[in-house]
Amino acid sequence: MSVPYVSPPALAPGARVALVSPAGPLSGEADLERAEHNVRDLGWEPHAYPHALAREGYLAGDDASRLADLNAAIRDPRIDAIWCLRGGYGSMRILDAIDFDTLRRAPKAIIGFSDITALHFAVRARSNLVSYHGPTARAVLTPFSRESLLRATSAGDPFAVAPPLTWLQEGDASGPLEGGNLALICALLGTPYAARFDGAILVLEDVSEPLYRIDRMLRQLMLSGALARVAGLCFGAFTDRGDEGDAAPRSLDVLFREAATHVRGPVVSDIPCGHIPDQWTLPLGARAELSRARGLVLAHSGAPPFTP
Amino acid sequence: MSVPYVSPPALAPGARVALVSPAGPLSGEADLERAEHNVRDLGWEPHAYPHALAREGYLAGDDASRLADLNAAIRDPRIDAIWCLRGGYGSMRILDAIDFDTLRRAPKAIIGFSDITALHFAVRARSNLVSYHGPTARAVLTPFSRESLLRATSAGDPFAVAPPLTWLQEGDASGPLEGGNLALICALLGTPYAARFDGAILVLEDVSEPLYRIDRMLRQLMLSGALARVAGLCFGAFTDRGDEGDAAPRSLDVLFREAATHVRGPVVSDIPCGHIPDQWTLPLGARAELSRARGLVLAHSGAPPFTP
Repeated sequence: MSVPYVSPPALAPGARVALVSPAGPLSGEADLERAEHNVRDLGWEPHAYPHALAREGYLAGDDASRLADLNAAIRDPRIDAIWCLRGGYGSMRILDAIDFDTLRRAPKAIIGFSDITALHFAVRARSNLVSYHGPTARAVLTPFSRESLLRATSAGDPFAVAPPLTWLQEGDASGPLEGGNLALICALLGTPYAARFDGAILVLEDVSEPLYRIDRMLRQLMLSGALARVAGLCFGAFTDRGDEGDAAPRSLDVLFREAATHVRGPVVSDIPCGHIPDQWTLPLGARAELSRARGLVLAHSGAPPFTP
Repeated sequence: MSVPYVSPPALAPGARVALVSPAGPLSGEADLERAEHNVRDLGWEPHAYPHALAREGYLAGDDASRLADLNAAIRDPRIDAIWCLRGGYGSMRILDAIDFDTLRRAPKAIIGFSDITALHFAVRARSNLVSYHGPTARAVLTPFSRESLLRATSAGDPFAVAPPLTWLQEGDASGPLEGGNLALICALLGTPYAARFDGAILVLEDVSEPLYRIDRMLRQLMLSGALARVAGLCFGAFTDRGDEGDAAPRSLDVLFREAATHVRGPVVSDIPCGHIPDQWTLPLGARAELSRARGLVLAHSGAPPFTP
């Protein structure tokens, strides 16, 4: 099937990358220095924006400041990519005032995850653009994460993760890749920035959410009909739940299998996505394939898959 | 304005009250004993249902058990009211299989709050019935909470809270009373059990949610258009946030005032609703009035307000 979203230009060596904080604040300058190091290590050129280090409570500066940096990066024709420094919380507060028209006319790569899930959804809904669910710029990049990010954004073409995956429900499916942070997906239900579930390969991950909250969020996806509409479902990591050592009768696996009964297509877990060191970069909106034979395959074209 | 929901029969002395656990488990038998004491103290007769003390992880027994008790109480013509023993989490898991048709034909009072918010919304959506957002049965009832619960459910007529309220935005409004736990309200957005915001006097409370999550949930209500559709907004208590001693530049009051700018009618805070000792019983779906002159007035008829 064809995918209705436009991919931003691939990032070449020397690409100019804006470092912005649209959500939560950095811990300090070391975070920004690590981000600049990451950008250079990938062969790109870092441009830290004025409010990158701002802080106002749980936000990286007030809404106007975070918005000013993001829109400046979108509008500057010399900038090739926007790499978000951190998630946390705050993207939802500025969605309505982002310059999506300029971004649609001059697509550029947008990278980040966790709270940045909200930005990704808005970018697809309003700018019709593929964007990259991958590490935040301040992350300590493992070789796996670095290679996946580089492949996804630079080559602009074949990249994928082959098995091993844990199969919870058999089937073959393909469709646009959708998803990200489960809490943000639920927090956008009922709004104009809700995920596009129809026919999608949906990926879910989260952090610091105890089992009962994961249960509640998955139940919202079931009751809303979202799970019945996806083509396939992929669970990533759900880390720091606070119950990892607990041999409770209810477990994450039970919740995944309950959700699977609401999905018509294939369901897998253990994909390298989430708040984990080895993290895959997912081009949300790009074409994905999920099959027993090939695993989860992501490719802008039909070229052979890549296994990091 | 007229309210489209049917009020259940008022509870008279000797009313038979089913004690059920549709959500989270009790701590132990002392909880159930306190609940039975509360029922007797209100002049009613307690009937503990078989799985009242069941436990399976964070649930009060499996879905089938919790559902069996709830449906048995709905179907038993000798039962006048259903008082939920605890909130926690779990109501959303059984909503689709509750016998709403029987409840519609034979209305009875349903009492509880927190996670029980989901049950209240479903009862209104599917059974067209007013239900009571009030203490769970296991609560230690203060004289204030006891009197409010008795007034709301027994008299079937005038009861209200007069000022003092904190006024965040002026105006007069009336409409059906809606709301409850903010997390549950958000968890039901996009589902058939979503709150009915149009023209409502919306009440919000929550517990154990840090500021950034309250921010996120209120933002979801703004982005969904819900706040633009209510007639008035009342903030109850948001307790145990973990930041009460924090003099952060962002505070609960700032969030309330941000939300108020999205509401066309009156907005107040400090109503006695939430996870607090002196708790008001709110007849969700009944007519409410919010005005500077009279405060927040709840009444099944036009009789004079009651101040506990």
